[in-house]
Amino acid sequence: MDRFYFPNLEITQDKFFIEGEEAHHITGVMRKNIGDRVEITNGEGLTCECELIAIKKFSVECSTISRTIVKKKKPQFYFLIPVIKNPSRFEFMLEKLTELGVNQIIPFISEKSLKVSDKHERWTKVLISAMKQSHEPFLPVLHSMINFDEGIDNLKRGNSVIFHGDFEGETLEHLISVKNIFSADSVYLIVGPEGDFSEREKETLSRLDSIPVKLSDNRLRSETAAITLLSLIKNLFKGVP
Amino acid sequence: MDRFYFPNLEITQDKFFIEGEEAHHITGVMRKNIGDRVEITNGEGLTCECELIAIKKFSVECSTISRTIVKKKKPQFYFLIPVIKNPSRFEFMLEKLTELGVNQIIPFISEKSLKVSDKHERWTKVLISAMKQSHEPFLPVLHSMINFDEGIDNLKRGNSVIFHGDFEGETLEHLISVKNIFSADSVYLIVGPEGDFSEREKETLSRLDSIPVKLSDNRLRSETAAITLLSLIKNLFKGVP
Repeated sequence: MDRFYFPNLEITQDKFFIEGEEAHHITGVMRKNIGDRVEITNGEGLTCECELIAIKKFSVECSTISRTIVKKKKPQFYFLIPVIKNPSRFEFMLEKLTELGVNQIIPFISEKSLKVSDKHERWTKVLISAMKQSHEPFLPVLHSMINFDEGIDNLKRGNSVIFHGDFEGETLEHLISVKNIFSADSVYLIVGPEGDFSEREKETLSRLDSIPVKLSDNRLRSETAAITLLSLIKNLFKGVP
Repeated sequence: MDRFYFPNLEITQDKFFIEGEEAHHITGVMRKNIGDRVEITNGEGLTCECELIAIKKFSVECSTISRTIVKKKKPQFYFLIPVIKNPSRFEFMLEKLTELGVNQIIPFISEKSLKVSDKHERWTKVLISAMKQSHEPFLPVLHSMINFDEGIDNLKRGNSVIFHGDFEGETLEHLISVKNIFSADSVYLIVGPEGDFSEREKETLSRLDSIPVKLSDNRLRSETAAITLLSLIKNLFKGVP
């Protein structure tokens, strides 16, 4: 069933109106009609199966048939991603991390990065589209862009563990024996920009006790490293009793 | 050091000429000059560090300084990938599988696939570019497109094991206990097309004893499933003593 996004959806609503761009998407693009059933998610774990009961020029009225509520899981996965110059590669990375269930995304500018502007609105659209398509129940939180060295210390980390992709790092079978990582509430993941982290950034990672993970024998592009790191680490944490 | 592709490179050559498109790439695009050092790979495990000793209009002369030879590893990874309609997503999948060290790629048309033509030459360029960029020592073998049901039985499989992405499949921690998979010489990996495998294709996978692997709680696009499956299975096999 096709899924649409309505952030104002609440659990108490039996009937509600969707307006604006998403209403157009339901009727104009996806050609839904009165009587059709769709799924509406609020991107916060609540998804309703609904019937369309009225269609007007700028709005759609929905009647709720059933509800699914998914609670946030532990650990939560935060990903610090380098803002790379090529927009299609960057947006691909956003899409893939959303499909794979990342919870928060923090774009960063590295010392070695080229200047790129924060396209928050455009990037949010990529996340919403990937969330709907993959049936991920939570829209990832997209943070404002940070400078790596300034921003990383300001993140509230609590009971967390950090991993970063590193050609010289540990293989995962070594990490499985490091049992105390599995009690973390938050898992921070980081991959470097094209041209790798600067020496100062590497010192920062080391000071934060970030665990270097070897992802491949090859040199991976940033977006490939990000997808692989999230896949491996999520799988590692799923294996915990 | 920048890396270039010259399939005719042989281990006995101390000096050799590169002609055609790749010569243009070295001098015209990457602006290399006499005296510059570059890496030249034959995509068969042999890579030479070379000095450019002469540049003519349509050729470059190289002098070998040192050689690296990488032998093929066991197991070899074969990936059967669905030919999806969106070319940029398909080429992205080719690029990522190459970066992550796949050995052979077999594009297939599924019962539910839309008609797409075999763009062997264009796809090969994507593989070469990803091989050079990631410093992968082997160019993946790109097979001609097959029809899933007809083609899969004709693959010479020998001592092999097959895994396919499946929402209803096993998690990897279960698979780790299935010890006899680790003696395989060849690992075949398969992900379904958009709209999933047909019932008949599912029966074929079952008849071939393909092991279903659960990749995510979400519905993954074909290219995401492919990258995740290769990352997880390569990592699983690396963990073998």
